[in-house]
Amino acid sequence: MSDIRILHETDLRARIALDTGAIDVVERAFARLAEGGVEMPPVMSMHMPDVNGEVDVKTAYVPGLPGFAVKISPGFFDNPAKGLPSTSGLMVVLSTETGRVRAVLLDNGYLTDVRTAAAGGVAARHLARGDAARAAIFGAGLQARMQLRALCLVRPIAEAVIWARDPAKSGRLAAELSGNDLAVRATADPAEAAGFADVIVTTTPATEPILMADWLRPGQHVTAMGSDQAGKGELDPACLARADLYVADRLAQTRKMGELRAALAAGTIADDGSLPELGEVITGRRPGRTAPEQITIADLTGTGVQDTAIATRALAAFDQE
Amino acid sequence: MSDIRILHETDLRARIALDTGAIDVVERAFARLAEGGVEMPPVMSMHMPDVNGEVDVKTAYVPGLPGFAVKISPGFFDNPAKGLPSTSGLMVVLSTETGRVRAVLLDNGYLTDVRTAAAGGVAARHLARGDAARAAIFGAGLQARMQLRALCLVRPIAEAVIWARDPAKSGRLAAELSGNDLAVRATADPAEAAGFADVIVTTTPATEPILMADWLRPGQHVTAMGSDQAGKGELDPACLARADLYVADRLAQTRKMGELRAALAAGTIADDGSLPELGEVITGRRPGRTAPEQITIADLTGTGVQDTAIATRALAAFDQE
Repeated sequence: MSDIRILHETDLRARIALDTGAIDVVERAFARLAEGGVEMPPVMSMHMPDVNGEVDVKTAYVPGLPGFAVKISPGFFDNPAKGLPSTSGLMVVLSTETGRVRAVLLDNGYLTDVRTAAAGGVAARHLARGDAARAAIFGAGLQARMQLRALCLVRPIAEAVIWARDPAKSGRLAAELSGNDLAVRATADPAEAAGFADVIVTTTPATEPILMADWLRPGQHVTAMGSDQAGKGELDPACLARADLYVADRLAQTRKMGELRAALAAGTIADDGSLPELGEVITGRRPGRTAPEQITIADLTGTGVQDTAIATRALAAFDQE
Repeated sequence: MSDIRILHETDLRARIALDTGAIDVVERAFARLAEGGVEMPPVMSMHMPDVNGEVDVKTAYVPGLPGFAVKISPGFFDNPAKGLPSTSGLMVVLSTETGRVRAVLLDNGYLTDVRTAAAGGVAARHLARGDAARAAIFGAGLQARMQLRALCLVRPIAEAVIWARDPAKSGRLAAELSGNDLAVRATADPAEAAGFADVIVTTTPATEPILMADWLRPGQHVTAMGSDQAGKGELDPACLARADLYVADRLAQTRKMGELRAALAAGTIADDGSLPELGEVITGRRPGRTAPEQITIADLTGTGVQDTAIATRALAAFDQE
């Protein structure tokens, strides 16, 4: 029994950060997904309406890695009233040689936060203009701050604007994030925020569009990462028609629970086999941004291969001890 | 972090046994499934052909219980050559109030063994004749011995016969299990084993039928519990036509990976909405055995609700300390 590592949130926070290394391993995971051989079953989802809770389970097997993660992500939406975060959970890492449990990462969702933000960094690295210096973040939660940090790791972001439904929150976050090399302000006008930015990241659990197609302008990149359920969606479906390029983290998921779902329902985009996935852009199998004036959209729903990637990185950090 | 219980296999083996209490909680879980309110998503399954491995994830939410289990069950079929069992895994128990992790049960599949055998006990309790005294067990593995033990807990079993493909194994198992109140012998003739018994339990990973319809006689009950994948099956499809009553643990599963799958394909049974589930028989919503001369079949594929039931029992045993 002693060969199973049990790692707690504090241990993991001390070793694993949202840094270029995290972005690199998530980028490589998406590339592997495009290269083939990866197994990634559909997300297992269970809703518990009478306790206002849900749990998602994700996994992915990447040949060649020593382990694969099975991640259990609960969301219990009455928790904030009890003084607890809505989300928590853990990752179990199993050996790809024997299936035996190698580690239990009791991260309360921290590694998910990191790998989710890292995917935003990957998307911006491959789709945003190289000179993108202005960011707009929609939302003022944890991912708002982490997605902005990820952008700063891959692009020369100098200014950022934050819009959130609650102006008190966006104001506080802007004050907190503004620093030496980065000027951050809040705005009450989402159209102004959108128009200002070279890169827009939407990070909300919105169920109605918060970013309108009319607000977009040539040269922008948009990453929508808030939607991970069939009932959510942040982008006006016309955004996908307006964009020159739409890229999914995983089409099988974005069709069901990403921005693609509402756009397909609205008929603003055709799912004719031409839509690329992020890994295909990373590996050069499919083109990414091909001109500075293009508008690009990345639709991120969160994939098991990111979990296996970040869990592998976490375990490697401890194994090196 | 200290409020998460980490329990190891040795701890769990010391507290949780295949006993009447385990059969009772699994019976109650099936009843809850019939009563409604239970959430049980389809099994998540991932195959890793290049390492000859697979992993299944099961879960179920039962309103009123303090927690729900998410079970991760790997099967790595090259393990025996490495001196390791093929199956292992763990259960994670999450709070139904907050979704927070309450416990990690590092049982290496032990609790699955118990809840699987307990379901066999539940099936026999509700479908075998009350005077059933003779058992036939097909297979000589761990479930062969555990299913026989479960039968002895619910019926006055005095004699048992074991048939297995490998006669050396069935001989050894018969010698091991034969004791004071139970006479156990091995046989090389599966038809003889079947004809001898009041209750037959098939416990093998067979992919071709091992129990023929011609061998059945009035008054018998058959529990088939070996099939848990679409490629497996132990019963001649004609058995289901021969039987007076077919009962599934969960029709949504037995249609895909139980004995029902092959019978539907062979057209020996109609899936016309009349097939009952075990929980419906337990709660009296649907009839079970209604006459001593009937032939009954229970098709057990293993359900998440059993996992939540046994994990809840395990945690309660430790919480009482």
